[in-house]
Amino acid sequence: MNFISGTYTDQYQLTMAQVYFHNDGEYQDAVFDYFFRKSPFDGGYTIFAGLENLIDILEDLSFSKQDIDYLRTQGFDQKFLQYLKDFKFTGKVYSVNEGDIVFPLRPVVRIEGNIIEAQIIETLLLNILNFQSLIATKASRIRLVAPHQSLIDFGMRRAQGLGSYHASRAAIIGGFDASSHVMAGRDFGIPVSGTMAHSFIQSYNDELTAFRAFAKSRPDDCVLLVDTYNTLKSGVPNAIKVAKEMEEEGYKLNGVRLDSGDLAYLAKRTREILDQEGLEYVKIAASNQLDEFVIKSLLEQGAPIDVMGIGTSLVTGNPDGALDGVYKLAFTKGKARIKLSENKAKVTLPGKKQVFRLRDDQQHLIGADVVTLDDENLVDEMFHPFETDKSLKFPDCQQEPLLKMVMKNGKRLNKVKSLREIQKYSKERLAELPLEFKRFDNPHIYKIGLSKKLTDLRNRLISEEKRKQ
Amino acid sequence: MNFISGTYTDQYQLTMAQVYFHNDGEYQDAVFDYFFRKSPFDGGYTIFAGLENLIDILEDLSFSKQDIDYLRTQGFDQKFLQYLKDFKFTGKVYSVNEGDIVFPLRPVVRIEGNIIEAQIIETLLLNILNFQSLIATKASRIRLVAPHQSLIDFGMRRAQGLGSYHASRAAIIGGFDASSHVMAGRDFGIPVSGTMAHSFIQSYNDELTAFRAFAKSRPDDCVLLVDTYNTLKSGVPNAIKVAKEMEEEGYKLNGVRLDSGDLAYLAKRTREILDQEGLEYVKIAASNQLDEFVIKSLLEQGAPIDVMGIGTSLVTGNPDGALDGVYKLAFTKGKARIKLSENKAKVTLPGKKQVFRLRDDQQHLIGADVVTLDDENLVDEMFHPFETDKSLKFPDCQQEPLLKMVMKNGKRLNKVKSLREIQKYSKERLAELPLEFKRFDNPHIYKIGLSKKLTDLRNRLISEEKRKQ
Repeated sequence: MNFISGTYTDQYQLTMAQVYFHNDGEYQDAVFDYFFRKSPFDGGYTIFAGLENLIDILEDLSFSKQDIDYLRTQGFDQKFLQYLKDFKFTGKVYSVNEGDIVFPLRPVVRIEGNIIEAQIIETLLLNILNFQSLIATKASRIRLVAPHQSLIDFGMRRAQGLGSYHASRAAIIGGFDASSHVMAGRDFGIPVSGTMAHSFIQSYNDELTAFRAFAKSRPDDCVLLVDTYNTLKSGVPNAIKVAKEMEEEGYKLNGVRLDSGDLAYLAKRTREILDQEGLEYVKIAASNQLDEFVIKSLLEQGAPIDVMGIGTSLVTGNPDGALDGVYKLAFTKGKARIKLSENKAKVTLPGKKQVFRLRDDQQHLIGADVVTLDDENLVDEMFHPFETDKSLKFPDCQQEPLLKMVMKNGKRLNKVKSLREIQKYSKERLAELPLEFKRFDNPHIYKIGLSKKLTDLRNRLISEEKRKQ
Repeated sequence: MNFISGTYTDQYQLTMAQVYFHNDGEYQDAVFDYFFRKSPFDGGYTIFAGLENLIDILEDLSFSKQDIDYLRTQGFDQKFLQYLKDFKFTGKVYSVNEGDIVFPLRPVVRIEGNIIEAQIIETLLLNILNFQSLIATKASRIRLVAPHQSLIDFGMRRAQGLGSYHASRAAIIGGFDASSHVMAGRDFGIPVSGTMAHSFIQSYNDELTAFRAFAKSRPDDCVLLVDTYNTLKSGVPNAIKVAKEMEEEGYKLNGVRLDSGDLAYLAKRTREILDQEGLEYVKIAASNQLDEFVIKSLLEQGAPIDVMGIGTSLVTGNPDGALDGVYKLAFTKGKARIKLSENKAKVTLPGKKQVFRLRDDQQHLIGADVVTLDDENLVDEMFHPFETDKSLKFPDCQQEPLLKMVMKNGKRLNKVKSLREIQKYSKERLAELPLEFKRFDNPHIYKIGLSKKLTDLRNRLISEEKRKQ
């Protein structure tokens, strides 16, 4: 995408890069892990999203003449600027498949490259993956409570500025059917949807004339907004008139939309009235401050809503607003690296690593991923990440490696996946996860385990680092 | 900005536009108001931001060949596509100055144009203004509790995708000094700031060597991150060594940064140790999950922090995540328009309007803005917006008109304002607001009043519309 350049980063990436550059950083290999520490929304899983965009961006990443001229004014030196002028990402990316379910503390993406490039891309990687994973996860929660409804992203107007663009993409990965966002539709192949606003009705002197004008212009995709004056007294009766006029012309009214008031009550009454008129085929769409909790309640009340338009809470990932993903150095200069912390949960996992998903002999998830060193083959025991005297044997489990190489020498290895493919994959992967991990309150905790070798390496490095203090 | 095109909108704007187009909408004047219903963060004011970007975008708005080709696949008809091919925004924009303090329910921006263009731009206007106003307001709250500290936006990695770009701009308007976001620095003239991450320290075999390498590369802007191993036992002593070595070379260490642990305690101890070594000039920077409440507490505890790096909570506008701004039709086809609602607070203000800010004869804000019809001169009485039997006389008040024309025939009328000018203006306007409106808990409510003429018009239209139901 033409918006992002090498300057889509934090300043400190460039100040560090300059130091590395003057110390032969181009020849210094580094391995960084992307992972997060907590699933959003106090939930039991996260949907990983943003990978295909990240690959596209990394393939094209460069510093324009305008960038270099700007950086010159910021005190970077001439040799380093010359280096940036020719900069390209030349590294490898290993990643979990986009759309997969992922869990805290274990690597989701592994970047291998020279330390300069690996550092410069940190911020954009976090920016793209944290946000899309947040929104895909939110979307999947809404899909969980509304498995049979059409779900449409209406959030652009309240989205966080240009964040709207990738929010609409991520919503599809999490299970949404369509978006109102035309540009996202254009660029990501998302089905776009949208009919009319209150202003349209108001701009006519009466509701019926407005409905008729719209139906005439878009007879094959006509959803009438029925709450401008009074839903049951005016909007629905006028919609019925128009629906019958459309029938005479050989068309069918697609639906009516409720955007205010008590949606459960209004949807039921509207359904009754439509059905009495033989308009069983007219769908009911609803919008207005919907989120997974409101939708769950509406459906539990039996509200006959076919189409849901969800805005703010979806595209801003409310109430969390951010996934806490981080990017940590795991290996450089031939040595595994660790970052200590007083908080045990913040001590990083050193070395070049792989992650395996465990399944029993019936192919069911056992609810644990195990992290190993990259050169390990199958393992049959895993250790608790913080209480390393606790371990668990799993001699008969199937082990699926989750990190696969998706870029090499800065180039994409596989063909671009369509959003539809990613959505389908995500649905299959989430379906494997037992319900107890998906409930909203106190979900079951998916386990992380470390291999013996990784545990030993980590313990050794912790001792070494403590000696430095 | 080259990213945004006419497709940066909701699909329904285009479906409505097509209907308008086929009904001579090009010749149908319309007036829309942008306003919001609730200040974010349960606060007593909102900082209005995003206007300069909006003007730039509106001046350049068009549909590319790629856009038209895409829309052709979406069922729009050929004549309408031909119209979009030549589309330009040709309307007028009246607006409050960017950076001003604004309050719920009264117009902040007024758009006048033909109904097609006024409708197509709705979504992008809301998208740009809602978000930047949210973030500028958040930034101003942080500035209020830390009037003397350097405040730096560190939020890019946790920002909502590309939303990071305008978040960094809005933070400056709200009173921040700098950002880590290089691209925002390049495009908006924001001072950028940033030195090193933990990975930099970890990539060396010991902390002192890392510090020395960095100091050598950037001796005139060197801030050392001191918490990688142990802040007081390792980081600060090593920083002191490097500071003294720098002094011998004629340089001064700029600062040390704390990024974990108890920031109040560590800042105090670090200050003591640095001062004992004669390094009073070395600043203390702190980061890690800061927001206005944490910062207030740190400073109340006497933490000697000079520089604050604020990330997630700033750039995502946590916990609100969105400003609830809306865009409502007020006038078309020669008639003022109103939107009714069962909720009195949601009934719109009809007609082409102006807003006046009231000051007493000492030039002090009296805590009220009054909304009038656009052709009214000064008024001396205002009516409660929902309880129209309540009124207030203000015979001796100064009245400042807030909505000024900033675009005409789709062209900018004034020269571009620099971010620094907008920030300065915002600071002055916020300084006028008494403290009771700025406190975080239950702030005093800034009043809205309607002129007699507007009240009468509104009452008349409410009666007319009710007759339609």
